[in-house]
Amino acid sequence: MLLTTLYIIGITAEAMTGALAAGKRHMDWFGVMLVASATAIGGGTVRDVLLGHYPLGWVANPQYLVITCLAGLLTTVIAKWVVRFHKVFIILDAIGLIVFSIIGCRIAMDMGLPAIICIVSAVVTGIFGGLLRDLICRQQPMVLHKELYASVAFIAGGMYYGMMFLAVPEMIATISTLVVGFVARMAAVQWSWRLPVFKLEETSDEKRGKQVARN
Amino acid sequence: MLLTTLYIIGITAEAMTGALAAGKRHMDWFGVMLVASATAIGGGTVRDVLLGHYPLGWVANPQYLVITCLAGLLTTVIAKWVVRFHKVFIILDAIGLIVFSIIGCRIAMDMGLPAIICIVSAVVTGIFGGLLRDLICRQQPMVLHKELYASVAFIAGGMYYGMMFLAVPEMIATISTLVVGFVARMAAVQWSWRLPVFKLEETSDEKRGKQVARN
Amino acid sequence: MLLTTLYIIGITAEAMTGALAAGKRHMDWFGVMLVASATAIGGGTVRDVLLGHYPLGWVANPQYLVITCLAGLLTTVIAKWVVRFHKVFIILDAIGLIVFSIIGCRIAMDMGLPAIICIVSAVVTGIFGGLLRDLICRQQPMVLHKELYASVAFIAGGMYYGMMFLAVPEMIATISTLVVGFVARMAAVQWSWRLPVFKLEETSDEKRGKQVARN
Repeated sequence: MLLTTLYIIGITAEAMTGALAAGKRHMDWFGVMLVASATAIGGGTVRDVLLGHYPLGWVANPQYLVITCLAGLLTTVIAKWVVRFHKVFIILDAIGLIVFSIIGCRIAMDMGLPAIICIVSAVVTGIFGGLLRDLICRQQPMVLHKELYASVAFIAGGMYYGMMFLAVPEMIATISTLVVGFVARMAAVQWSWRLPVFKLEETSDEKRGKQVARN
Repeated sequence: MLLTTLYIIGITAEAMTGALAAGKRHMDWFGVMLVASATAIGGGTVRDVLLGHYPLGWVANPQYLVITCLAGLLTTVIAKWVVRFHKVFIILDAIGLIVFSIIGCRIAMDMGLPAIICIVSAVVTGIFGGLLRDLICRQQPMVLHKELYASVAFIAGGMYYGMMFLAVPEMIATISTLVVGFVARMAAVQWSWRLPVFKLEETSDEKRGKQVARN
Repeated sequence: MLLTTLYIIGITAEAMTGALAAGKRHMDWFGVMLVASATAIGGGTVRDVLLGHYPLGWVANPQYLVITCLAGLLTTVIAKWVVRFHKVFIILDAIGLIVFSIIGCRIAMDMGLPAIICIVSAVVTGIFGGLLRDLICRQQPMVLHKELYASVAFIAGGMYYGMMFLAVPEMIATISTLVVGFVARMAAVQWSWRLPVFKLEETSDEKRGKQVARN
């Protein structure tokens, strides 16, 4: 119940971030719905395809797809409002991230997969939606640069897995993962925590090559 | 029979548009074959992976893959001719779009999936080939901007599904969907019908960020 | 045994090329691990998804995923050394390419698929890792431009398939494919052998369109 409610909040918020990215690329309504849906349910889709977990969530429950399309279209109408209240979105997006991670972890656990794969499943579910959004909209993938995003999914997945492994009641495991993950994400945003960045200069040859490729 | 013939025409035309895009990126022969095949059979591949519909069409029928590779290579030889007669291609591409949509809808129906998913399956089959082409060739995805393209796939899928649901004989459903879809697509090209576009200005911060990312 | 050893060398080398590409895009540690893993095991993943060959290699053997993540992180420490000894990498990368192709061919053969699909499986396994790396890092896809890369995978796949078909003992088939493929790849690098390139000029309209899209 709780998880389903939070999941719907999460996909709605993610769909809206997708629609905003589509708007920046001047896409039409269809593009808006596509990017919104890819952002919101793309992570779960990639996870299910990688794990061979059929039918996909939105194929079994098409109403989720309807929600993401409507949320995308709605965003075109209320875009100014959305942009102004973007702090609300950071909160909803954080909830979505943790919920997606918990669901991803749990599906892999239900399939009897090893611990590493359960945590990878959490991370994939949490971040691949945003990654697909940035690929389709040809943006620099934010999840690979921004404040601890994938790391929060990793922590949430590991924490949930650990507690389930220790036979903590599911409700307690879910709620405490939600709280810890949410606080970690908010703290990362607030104080701009980041993972160390690996910077490598391009050689001048490569720069020239890129210049040529661009023209 | 009819559908198979039109399908082969469709993948040939799509493969050629893929080869032209590869040529604009100065790819080698292998790249041409890859982009041609991704454009022509990528939509069906994405659909089958999403629906868990194995084996994929081209794995079961490798001759389709041979056709798309040959069509791609042929395009390198007759490129000038192809570019000059590009109105013929708009027609062949429109036929392909409708045929792909009908096939996509039907496969989902044969799997017993709900109406929404059948129509989504039509749209995915119709447009993901072009989307993959534009991602690999790093072009602005045309299906998300151009004249009603995805919408035509949507209409064709919905119409075919509706008629099959109403027990219209398959031949009649197929032909009338082909005619209506084709006319809709041609009209959209002729009069530049478009879906409304969602434009959102980037903030100056983002513009600067992009500038940095590009350099 | 031999193939497993060479496979581990191959994924390590590929993961390192992925990490270097991530470094050029200033990604954080997580991004480095993602790109490293996508480069090293992305080809096998795409192959398994296309063939419906579940569970995926790294899901069944998570230790490979651990290796690629560690190789990626290690690269951030020893990047200067890696760049300096990049000739070693060309060798390791060539070994990886052939090993991936052999494994891809063999998995398709074990599934009883037709010859064309076995060779396509070899090529997909060999090149899709590099293709994913270049898509995520938004580089011009190198495998579609560089010296015979996909072609070497094609030759290796075809040779291995042919020898197995002719009932050549597996050890001999594997080793001779490795030797021939490796020599072909090294020769291609040494003398810059390339497939012919298909160049098509963009029309001035398209150039303008691209200019607009970029701004």
